[in-house]
Amino acid sequence: MPEHTTASRLQLSGLCFLLQILLIILFAVFVRYSPESSPSLCSQQLNCSLRKTDAGSQHPRFRDVHLQALLGFGLLVAFLSRYGPGSVAISILLVAFAIQWAILIQGFLYFFLNGKIYVGAQSMVSADFCTATILISTGAVLGRVNPVQMLLLTLLGVTLFTLNEYILLSLMGVSDSGGSLTVHTFGAYFGLMVSRILHQPHMDKRKQQQDTGHQPDFFAVVGTIYLWIFWPSFTSATTVRDNAEPWAVLNTYFSLAASTLATFVLSPVLHEEGTVRMVQIQDATLAGAAVMGMAGEMLVTPFGALVAGFLAGLIPLLGFRFLTPVLCSKLKTQDTCGVHNIHGLPGILGALLGTLLTALATADAYGGRLELVFPLVAQGSRTVTDQALNQLCALPVTLLLAMLGGSLTG
Amino acid sequence: MPEHTTASRLQLSGLCFLLQILLIILFAVFVRYSPESSPSLCSQQLNCSLRKTDAGSQHPRFRDVHLQALLGFGLLVAFLSRYGPGSVAISILLVAFAIQWAILIQGFLYFFLNGKIYVGAQSMVSADFCTATILISTGAVLGRVNPVQMLLLTLLGVTLFTLNEYILLSLMGVSDSGGSLTVHTFGAYFGLMVSRILHQPHMDKRKQQQDTGHQPDFFAVVGTIYLWIFWPSFTSATTVRDNAEPWAVLNTYFSLAASTLATFVLSPVLHEEGTVRMVQIQDATLAGAAVMGMAGEMLVTPFGALVAGFLAGLIPLLGFRFLTPVLCSKLKTQDTCGVHNIHGLPGILGALLGTLLTALATADAYGGRLELVFPLVAQGSRTVTDQALNQLCALPVTLLLAMLGGSLTG
Amino acid sequence: MPEHTTASRLQLSGLCFLLQILLIILFAVFVRYSPESSPSLCSQQLNCSLRKTDAGSQHPRFRDVHLQALLGFGLLVAFLSRYGPGSVAISILLVAFAIQWAILIQGFLYFFLNGKIYVGAQSMVSADFCTATILISTGAVLGRVNPVQMLLLTLLGVTLFTLNEYILLSLMGVSDSGGSLTVHTFGAYFGLMVSRILHQPHMDKRKQQQDTGHQPDFFAVVGTIYLWIFWPSFTSATTVRDNAEPWAVLNTYFSLAASTLATFVLSPVLHEEGTVRMVQIQDATLAGAAVMGMAGEMLVTPFGALVAGFLAGLIPLLGFRFLTPVLCSKLKTQDTCGVHNIHGLPGILGALLGTLLTALATADAYGGRLELVFPLVAQGSRTVTDQALNQLCALPVTLLLAMLGGSLTG
Repeated sequence: MPEHTTASRLQLSGLCFLLQILLIILFAVFVRYSPESSPSLCSQQLNCSLRKTDAGSQHPRFRDVHLQALLGFGLLVAFLSRYGPGSVAISILLVAFAIQWAILIQGFLYFFLNGKIYVGAQSMVSADFCTATILISTGAVLGRVNPVQMLLLTLLGVTLFTLNEYILLSLMGVSDSGGSLTVHTFGAYFGLMVSRILHQPHMDKRKQQQDTGHQPDFFAVVGTIYLWIFWPSFTSATTVRDNAEPWAVLNTYFSLAASTLATFVLSPVLHEEGTVRMVQIQDATLAGAAVMGMAGEMLVTPFGALVAGFLAGLIPLLGFRFLTPVLCSKLKTQDTCGVHNIHGLPGILGALLGTLLTALATADAYGGRLELVFPLVAQGSRTVTDQALNQLCALPVTLLLAMLGGSLTG
Repeated sequence: MPEHTTASRLQLSGLCFLLQILLIILFAVFVRYSPESSPSLCSQQLNCSLRKTDAGSQHPRFRDVHLQALLGFGLLVAFLSRYGPGSVAISILLVAFAIQWAILIQGFLYFFLNGKIYVGAQSMVSADFCTATILISTGAVLGRVNPVQMLLLTLLGVTLFTLNEYILLSLMGVSDSGGSLTVHTFGAYFGLMVSRILHQPHMDKRKQQQDTGHQPDFFAVVGTIYLWIFWPSFTSATTVRDNAEPWAVLNTYFSLAASTLATFVLSPVLHEEGTVRMVQIQDATLAGAAVMGMAGEMLVTPFGALVAGFLAGLIPLLGFRFLTPVLCSKLKTQDTCGVHNIHGLPGILGALLGTLLTALATADAYGGRLELVFPLVAQGSRTVTDQALNQLCALPVTLLLAMLGGSLTG
Repeated sequence: MPEHTTASRLQLSGLCFLLQILLIILFAVFVRYSPESSPSLCSQQLNCSLRKTDAGSQHPRFRDVHLQALLGFGLLVAFLSRYGPGSVAISILLVAFAIQWAILIQGFLYFFLNGKIYVGAQSMVSADFCTATILISTGAVLGRVNPVQMLLLTLLGVTLFTLNEYILLSLMGVSDSGGSLTVHTFGAYFGLMVSRILHQPHMDKRKQQQDTGHQPDFFAVVGTIYLWIFWPSFTSATTVRDNAEPWAVLNTYFSLAASTLATFVLSPVLHEEGTVRMVQIQDATLAGAAVMGMAGEMLVTPFGALVAGFLAGLIPLLGFRFLTPVLCSKLKTQDTCGVHNIHGLPGILGALLGTLLTALATADAYGGRLELVFPLVAQGSRTVTDQALNQLCALPVTLLLAMLGGSLTG
């Protein structure tokens, strides 16, 4: 069916053109550079530090944000490498589109003032987070939808992600600096629901085997390397940097190390072949990073990070062995890249861990950091228990939104 | 002809030896570390910020420059990956030589004082820019000249680049922070002229097809990734950092995103094969970055960056389709890696855009940034129109120098 | 012998499990986050700069250390790429284990206070250095020991490395910021001694040829690129950053450039095949970096770095040609990845160079930097000659410890 292919090809081309024109018009009408990002104002105040923005998050210094945008993109490409060379081109298209769209949508919610969106380096970091979520979602449906469908999925996914993030962070006051909930859990379940709806029974087995089996080890090596380098910074990207950050970074490193060891513990027990495959290590690394998303800045002791990372490192292996077949046969949900095992479950574990840590938080253990991790608690407007309840409620809210959104999109 | 190969091999070895000995002697006689790079002086003044150097550019903080040197090298290697594994070794040789030579030549023009060149981290960044230009130039002749010729091309290219940069930045006061003119346009046309002179009709067709056709996709993936991560910093490397930088970085990101989408719009229309190839995306990314070289710090609105990036993203595709065959057959100029489409034309577009923006610049739109982007205008010693004329004149000057230099070198 | 493989597989799994549990318990008992890494203290003092820690090194700003930890990991993975895809999985396991173990062991020596180890970002950087040493050591025995033996080697190697580092830096007051002695020389000779003890005559020839001959060029390209980007920062990682750093970084860049040219000078003379192989360039790059370890912050003139880098670049080529066969046949020591040529000899050269430079150091040439590079000399408690003697003595001490430790481990 060559003419069909030509048609769909031109369809993609036309859609890209339409979307880009639309984005340019919307940007022309609404988006302006924030005067804050021109630091003429800043040079007067010595450090430009810690002014409240509308989103309730604090304004880090430009230097740092710029570095993070840089690292954030490094991370995005680490995701790309997971999907093999065949799908990289389409993933980069999604990244390029999602970044522009996310800046618009998030701008309407967070940075909207007098009919204009004022973007700055901070907007770019938020858009990064959003794009990472979209890449996780597409991991679940990769190979079974065409590029046009993927663009539409991105269009809706970005909107829903922003909505979910807005509810969680701004309305409920949840602390989720590294995105255990907003990025990993939402991304995974959104993608899974889309995958469920799009289920086509006759073409499953062959496709899936092909995609997970022959993924070249080389990309897994590069991916793992990127994750070790860039993820700890990503986890602490929206943290109030000058203060809580070092813990979040160190916790993430410990978690990564422990999850890697966990792979070497479990993999030989579950699989007959002698060597641990690089893909398994990469999966464990991702899981170890996902679990630190919420809890990273809350953990007070390094051994907690080791335990959490170790448990998270076990999840993908057990999941692929026992859960994915069940998902596939019973619930009729394919999961091309195993995002449920790698992002979904560790994200939930991270959220539960975060809730537990919140409930146990005392002013003694945190000291001056309490104000930074839980600003509402420190201000006295909320007790620790309330905060923990809020954190816990954020989980079903996220799941619900992801499920509903996924069904709708599908 | 094995003895011929042995001779040319030893010739390369001897030339490298001679050049390195020469460089060591010249360094021993002339080059000293700048006392400024030992910051004992700096700690007294709080920020070490904004002292004028001889070159008219301002002295950024050491911390930042160090980071940029780091990123600059990241960028260089991104270029390397474009040329495939076969030519990487010789490219690294050129980088290693060009950096040392550029430090010497640029030192004589900019940092020469009392018979000594005082180098600091800033010199390393300038040498980076110069090396990037050389890599662009070699892209045009790759595969048709031997390593010894390439070393000589580097020797002359660095000298001419520095001369051109000196005329543009210091004498004419042109703003070209990201090197639309000095790096991209000069590099492309210098390489093309060399290629034109070295034209050998009998070996063209076969070589070219081989080089552009079978370039492995993998390197294109890694290259694109590097560009996304490192280029925005490169564009803003010589910007007065604490002030104009955030806009330049954000503009570059927007331009990259738009040029990627442009590839997906145009590629299916022009080519029959269904999928967009990674190499095309990489070309568009490079073009999107090149167009932001001069205009990056001048654009006041994000949508301008989107439009410019979109247009730039169309250039390489159209160029390869319609222009390269003409160049090849009519003008007898081969262009192994398509540097004309990827660097030359987007660089010229960027320069024209920069001129336009300069002419439209008003004190209102720029506010405090006017002083940083156009210091001469802000000081009142030049009107906006004069500055625009200067920017415009810089284009033919660059082209002329590149053409003459290329002919000479060839 | 499939049952044998299964047994060893489960043995590895069990060992990993035991070690991880042990680490978690030890971390739970001993390790706490340093209150210093929560910068509430810091925000009161403006810069948090330059407080002395127990280890005698000065406390850099958090921001910088964080960046270095990031880069340090980048470096680790550069090592990984040297060993080809087959051994990457096991190398990552060693990294994950060595980091945790190094934090514990180094913590007991440096950061032990009131029965607790207080870790901060600084500990992570030290652990990085230690892990790099272990990776160098394993390079000598790669392919001839099984993973369980490697884990035990790591266990002992980390302990001995920390002991050696403690003796050199804290007790003898040696300046070795980039680890010429502590990292390169110790790592290489420790690995070689282990290799010597484990010598099995019947399986040598075949293995070695296979490992060095068919190493894919692609990994060498990526490895060289990483080294150029990340190594200069690594060399200056423990330097007192705001002061001596720019010189160390620039010296390392010059050394890298010169060693690359040296490869192109010597390689065609020694080898018949026409092209310089990427692996040779990578080896020269590593050697050029190793030689700058100690001398990097001491060199006052750039041409010194060029000369040292040039000489260091010659070592690996000459070593592989003339020394490795002698080592292999006479001393019955295999060296799978040539660590003796790449790390051992350049490390010794670097140490001798450092000694020479120390002996020649005068207050005039260093100015305010004397205090930073040689704090004891600047305080007047030691003459320059004493310092030079100490630097020189550090070499046999390191060699002795490495040899003894290696024999013991073997």
